[in-house]
Amino acid sequence: MAAQHQLAPEGDHGPNRRLLDRLLRVRATTEWLSEPLSAEDQAIQSMPDASPTKWHRAHTTWFFEEFVLSRFQPAYQRFHADYGYLFNSYYNAVGRMHPRPQRGMLSRPSVDEIGAYRAYVDGQLTALLQQENLPRQALELVLLGTHHEQQHQELLLTDIKHTLFQNPLLPAYRAVEVSAPAGDTAALRFIPGQEGVVSMGHAGDEFHFDNETPAHKTYLQPHAIAHRPASNAEYLAFIRDGGYRRPELWLSDGWSTLQQRGWDRPYYWQEDLETEFTLTGRQPLDPSSPVCHLSYYEADAFARWAGARLPTEAEWESFARTHLHQVQSLDDGYFHPRAGDPGAPVQHGGVWEWTASAYAPYPGFHPPPGAVGEYNGKFMCNQMVLRGGSCATPGDHLRTTYRNFFYPDARWQFAGVRLARDL
Amino acid sequence: MAAQHQLAPEGDHGPNRRLLDRLLRVRATTEWLSEPLSAEDQAIQSMPDASPTKWHRAHTTWFFEEFVLSRFQPAYQRFHADYGYLFNSYYNAVGRMHPRPQRGMLSRPSVDEIGAYRAYVDGQLTALLQQENLPRQALELVLLGTHHEQQHQELLLTDIKHTLFQNPLLPAYRAVEVSAPAGDTAALRFIPGQEGVVSMGHAGDEFHFDNETPAHKTYLQPHAIAHRPASNAEYLAFIRDGGYRRPELWLSDGWSTLQQRGWDRPYYWQEDLETEFTLTGRQPLDPSSPVCHLSYYEADAFARWAGARLPTEAEWESFARTHLHQVQSLDDGYFHPRAGDPGAPVQHGGVWEWTASAYAPYPGFHPPPGAVGEYNGKFMCNQMVLRGGSCATPGDHLRTTYRNFFYPDARWQFAGVRLARDL
Amino acid sequence: MAAQHQLAPEGDHGPNRRLLDRLLRVRATTEWLSEPLSAEDQAIQSMPDASPTKWHRAHTTWFFEEFVLSRFQPAYQRFHADYGYLFNSYYNAVGRMHPRPQRGMLSRPSVDEIGAYRAYVDGQLTALLQQENLPRQALELVLLGTHHEQQHQELLLTDIKHTLFQNPLLPAYRAVEVSAPAGDTAALRFIPGQEGVVSMGHAGDEFHFDNETPAHKTYLQPHAIAHRPASNAEYLAFIRDGGYRRPELWLSDGWSTLQQRGWDRPYYWQEDLETEFTLTGRQPLDPSSPVCHLSYYEADAFARWAGARLPTEAEWESFARTHLHQVQSLDDGYFHPRAGDPGAPVQHGGVWEWTASAYAPYPGFHPPPGAVGEYNGKFMCNQMVLRGGSCATPGDHLRTTYRNFFYPDARWQFAGVRLARDL
Amino acid sequence: MAAQHQLAPEGDHGPNRRLLDRLLRVRATTEWLSEPLSAEDQAIQSMPDASPTKWHRAHTTWFFEEFVLSRFQPAYQRFHADYGYLFNSYYNAVGRMHPRPQRGMLSRPSVDEIGAYRAYVDGQLTALLQQENLPRQALELVLLGTHHEQQHQELLLTDIKHTLFQNPLLPAYRAVEVSAPAGDTAALRFIPGQEGVVSMGHAGDEFHFDNETPAHKTYLQPHAIAHRPASNAEYLAFIRDGGYRRPELWLSDGWSTLQQRGWDRPYYWQEDLETEFTLTGRQPLDPSSPVCHLSYYEADAFARWAGARLPTEAEWESFARTHLHQVQSLDDGYFHPRAGDPGAPVQHGGVWEWTASAYAPYPGFHPPPGAVGEYNGKFMCNQMVLRGGSCATPGDHLRTTYRNFFYPDARWQFAGVRLARDL
Repeated sequence: MAAQHQLAPEGDHGPNRRLLDRLLRVRATTEWLSEPLSAEDQAIQSMPDASPTKWHRAHTTWFFEEFVLSRFQPAYQRFHADYGYLFNSYYNAVGRMHPRPQRGMLSRPSVDEIGAYRAYVDGQLTALLQQENLPRQALELVLLGTHHEQQHQELLLTDIKHTLFQNPLLPAYRAVEVSAPAGDTAALRFIPGQEGVVSMGHAGDEFHFDNETPAHKTYLQPHAIAHRPASNAEYLAFIRDGGYRRPELWLSDGWSTLQQRGWDRPYYWQEDLETEFTLTGRQPLDPSSPVCHLSYYEADAFARWAGARLPTEAEWESFARTHLHQVQSLDDGYFHPRAGDPGAPVQHGGVWEWTASAYAPYPGFHPPPGAVGEYNGKFMCNQMVLRGGSCATPGDHLRTTYRNFFYPDARWQFAGVRLARDL
Repeated sequence: MAAQHQLAPEGDHGPNRRLLDRLLRVRATTEWLSEPLSAEDQAIQSMPDASPTKWHRAHTTWFFEEFVLSRFQPAYQRFHADYGYLFNSYYNAVGRMHPRPQRGMLSRPSVDEIGAYRAYVDGQLTALLQQENLPRQALELVLLGTHHEQQHQELLLTDIKHTLFQNPLLPAYRAVEVSAPAGDTAALRFIPGQEGVVSMGHAGDEFHFDNETPAHKTYLQPHAIAHRPASNAEYLAFIRDGGYRRPELWLSDGWSTLQQRGWDRPYYWQEDLETEFTLTGRQPLDPSSPVCHLSYYEADAFARWAGARLPTEAEWESFARTHLHQVQSLDDGYFHPRAGDPGAPVQHGGVWEWTASAYAPYPGFHPPPGAVGEYNGKFMCNQMVLRGGSCATPGDHLRTTYRNFFYPDARWQFAGVRLARDL
Repeated sequence: MAAQHQLAPEGDHGPNRRLLDRLLRVRATTEWLSEPLSAEDQAIQSMPDASPTKWHRAHTTWFFEEFVLSRFQPAYQRFHADYGYLFNSYYNAVGRMHPRPQRGMLSRPSVDEIGAYRAYVDGQLTALLQQENLPRQALELVLLGTHHEQQHQELLLTDIKHTLFQNPLLPAYRAVEVSAPAGDTAALRFIPGQEGVVSMGHAGDEFHFDNETPAHKTYLQPHAIAHRPASNAEYLAFIRDGGYRRPELWLSDGWSTLQQRGWDRPYYWQEDLETEFTLTGRQPLDPSSPVCHLSYYEADAFARWAGARLPTEAEWESFARTHLHQVQSLDDGYFHPRAGDPGAPVQHGGVWEWTASAYAPYPGFHPPPGAVGEYNGKFMCNQMVLRGGSCATPGDHLRTTYRNFFYPDARWQFAGVRLARDL
Repeated sequence: MAAQHQLAPEGDHGPNRRLLDRLLRVRATTEWLSEPLSAEDQAIQSMPDASPTKWHRAHTTWFFEEFVLSRFQPAYQRFHADYGYLFNSYYNAVGRMHPRPQRGMLSRPSVDEIGAYRAYVDGQLTALLQQENLPRQALELVLLGTHHEQQHQELLLTDIKHTLFQNPLLPAYRAVEVSAPAGDTAALRFIPGQEGVVSMGHAGDEFHFDNETPAHKTYLQPHAIAHRPASNAEYLAFIRDGGYRRPELWLSDGWSTLQQRGWDRPYYWQEDLETEFTLTGRQPLDPSSPVCHLSYYEADAFARWAGARLPTEAEWESFARTHLHQVQSLDDGYFHPRAGDPGAPVQHGGVWEWTASAYAPYPGFHPPPGAVGEYNGKFMCNQMVLRGGSCATPGDHLRTTYRNFFYPDARWQFAGVRLARDL
């Protein structure tokens, strides 16, 4: 993924050079991700939970316009009077918004206009960051904006994958020249975890989201965690053992969902159980690669079938602090999870890992005041936490304390499963 | 709309010259209609009942490929193996089809590819029609294909109007330089109609759809029909008199629909009751212009409020044979209905006119054998007949015997109301 | 069904003796029909289109209270202040009403209270009708009320049949001792009908509903009509010939409905195609009996498969005037359609017969003023006319001009099919 | 509620006397709760989440038949072959079941038949428990059955309350002679809780559900908990302060739910905000009584508005162990929550209290093998834990460790809110 790095301007970027570098690099990456997509590809909304590519491009831009430029750049002129309405995602505090399920109705503004919008805001941000003595809050919001945009980079990829999959032609997002390393095919090993009072959550000055704080103590029971995510081959064994036909393996809500939607395999697997749809088109299913595009319900049923369970968030974080030092990410340019290095004792697999923990505030959590406080806290219900990061996550965006979250029936993310056990 | 005529190639077009001229003219008109629309505009499906512009362009092309070229052009190579699946609308007899509500998911094939598809099929059709001694059925199917495409030209316009209206920016389809003539503002006059046994339906050799036949006798009771469609001013009086709040004016199904969908004005009227959305953008509501974008339920309630009723199909046809010699059409290039010439004793208004007649087969109706027999007959239930033609209908596509039909809750067509009375 | 006749009081009933006799007989029949049903049976609403038995009993009573007693009986005291709200079906002109889909939520008033309500109103009506010199309109409304109640008697039976069918125990409504006569098994004969201008609709002073008027002229094309309804055996042949799997036999809306609801046989037929649920419980399917519980879509598809069509309303009425002199009815006490007498040249079969005609006003139709004008006219859209009467229709309630109507997907009525053909 | 105790047979009940006493007492209580309800009241299902009274009566009986009698009583004859199908709630392991939303379709078996079913099973259980040397598992399952039935006693009451509320007549379930004591009107006091590692969950031999185990350690942060549930007066202040109109107070899913369903007050409050529907009919709203019939979303929004939060399950249990020694329950016979004794420093209020904890397995949780293992574990997703018990909970059914759980949008339970705070 060297290409997009070259898009970042060189040279002396003034008093906030590192932030500006990061900003321009992130912004360029979004454009690089959109580049293989035609105007039509970028306009489609394939389901209410997904957004069109060009909407992601505009919304991430609006975030800077709304929370940075209109507040800290005197006499800032908005690019277009209506974009605040069109590209606000869910921030009630800053006004009304276009209904989410209608995002695919917006043929205008065009892809070109959105490109111009991005360039305009990039220019304004660059000018702003040249200034000395910007308030600390402005710099923090720019940094937040880059992380926000990185979140949308992942969504852009998972949403476009979902969109292209609706097309009977099964078009590829892009070709990939990178070849996967020979993957680990060893049996799962369970590594005992820490027991007793441990700390979890983010401490320190580095960037993090509000939902990762405060750092706090929690209590772990005796447990062990698998050295790698479950593989396609292991999941296939679950299917072949009647996994999708045995209600005793499923949560009640999961079984209802399975029946209503006719689930019998991971979302992108083809009916032959030998191929799957990927961002590079239809491909043979690699037995050693981590299984992905599972819902929480499927991850949970698979774990029960395997005589195991999902790790809690606290167990996962404790494990990751000690053992998980390498992650697959968007930076690899592979766009699909793959088996880890056989030599590594513990492996990341390029998938988000469902945990057994419902998404909830940490003890003592308080969202920041103002509109950006709507960022995380208001979603703390009905969703499950995922940890780890995927092949679609920007590498410098992740942390051990990072909390991702989705509804338990969501399948369009790169979500897999790492097993845990009581000891 | 002179422009598109020039696109039709000149010169000697061989044995089927007139048909080929017509074919190329119709095909060019579709392209001319699509021309103001970006790739993104052309990709959106704004509701299950509407189709994307590029789908219309491809489907009308597929019709020729499926019913003409693949049957009558030996060794014809289809442009793309999957287009038969993607662009079949509803012809069960020729195979499976992509689900209608999913047409907006197709970013591929692109607008450019569809342009190439159209050009390829035009070339093949031109070559075919150069041949001597083509079977009569081939020529009839080409002619049918042109009329089929003309139907889709109107749908293309009403669908794109619906699509652009979903966008809060309310973009215009195109600017119009034609100015409307001063409209008739005279009060409605009711013209007595014929009584007793009359003939209706199409007789003769000219092109017509199967549903217009057979010509047959029917019996008319004493009645009279209004000299022009009802105007915006008249409809506004209905609204101001509580028309949308008085259940006694409505059919039971109409009242339920009104309540469920919150109807309180014609579809494209703005809340101010002073402006409306048109293909040329938001415009002042012209009091003298025909009211349009009514459902059947609204037309019927308005008629009841006015102490009148809708004409039956037979009454309408009898009236039109005698009195209606001029129609507004797409050829005027005005893209909106307007009041007729004050001097004309009887006026068309550029709107389809809801009749009181359910769409049903004429006595003795038999659909043609084979797949094209799915054209009209299978829709003969639950829909109401409209007569007359609109500002979006190609002028040479219409006939006095032409039967249009829509569900009674449909509002996105240019549909208005001409009153009738018992005598 | 002799039983209920004995419930009608004897003796001199004063100035309106015949009307009072009829009233009490009709009222007693409703009670006789409800008698086999427990309080729980009477409370259930099995779908929004159906009503609980006790609701039918109360609503028909309310009709007299609202339109007769409260208008013509000075100082009439309503039985309960809230019953007007609870038991108004759809008369917007007399006030608000309890939502139709909520009728099954009403455990109170109890069956006993509704029995008392009926007795109270019967007493009041009896007293009223003893008076001399009642306005003609009062007498007309009492007569209308009896016909209204007879309509509900049929619905009471079809609704309770639907309700009992939802129960896996498949309980019978009542046992029947009447044995069916040996049915006609002769092949269908098609009897040529009248051609040219004919009269249809009700003329004369006898009771009729508003929708049967005015009598008027219409024009019939050459045609012929089957001497009896189609039989179970004939319908079974349609099924075995793939009738439910061949889209070319179906209207487009019918095919969609079939697919959405998984139709593959008439509503009450069991999966074995050898038994069916009836009001007397699960019974063997009699090959010679008329097929029933068809939707319009099924009747239409069957006719197309048979190389025939449905008769129009006008054809049916003309046929019935000449040929149909005997009908099966509720009075037979058989509660199920059966094959007619083999000796009869033309046979009724105890089923309503779907016609090809959409339910619409006759030319010159005007509903009566006031609330009872909501009786028929406001339903004249989206429904199809059925003619003839069924085994659940009171015998003295029917006329040759009687127009029944249902939505084309309705299957819970005793509706079958009589074929017609063009000549 | 002395009445039902007298229904319990007296005398020497043999080797399992205490269990049999308990069994018969619980069974009699169910009958006593059903006694004010007519057959029609008992048949209605007012929403898919609720069940008819007679279904509760039959299902709790089936539980004993399926899990006790058919396993431990040799040659046991089931009362009716189909009841296993009709009255299985959700135990996939013991066979197919009647769909939950169809429970209101069952007019048969009648209330009387279900009474007979209960008597039959009671007799068989009594005979069984006279036996010496019954397997320990049989006794455990009988005990489980009594607790299962007590759960359904509460649901019976909340379901019938919901049912009667659908009736515009707003009928009362029963009159209550007990008068409420003068309630506490003191301001909320926050009582500091324990900090650090604490134990939670059930330990010891007494009856408990599987989901209360294993007892385990957890870690509490500094916090304080209110001395009583929030009152109607406090909740009214929230409403008057725009509580239902301010999105910043709500979880995102809560705000969507509020908008879709038009929530603007607790479920049973009347529009006047001065009266509410109760099991004793429409009553004035008592300002000092605990607010109830809140969803989790409302409880959470109220807490946020109050500058507080909901307690976690662990905080609640730790608090209750120390402070909460008296509970209101069904045994009081008041059928509605009421303010506690002003003299008590800490008060229960007769409402379930929403906690901030999603319903999840305790560390090391394993459901028991076999069908009864479907009891609790399979619901551990998407629901929130409530603690405490309500005015509809049998008094001897509750424990400090008891975990109740409902979806966050559920409002028909007696659910209120006790505030907590970080310290």
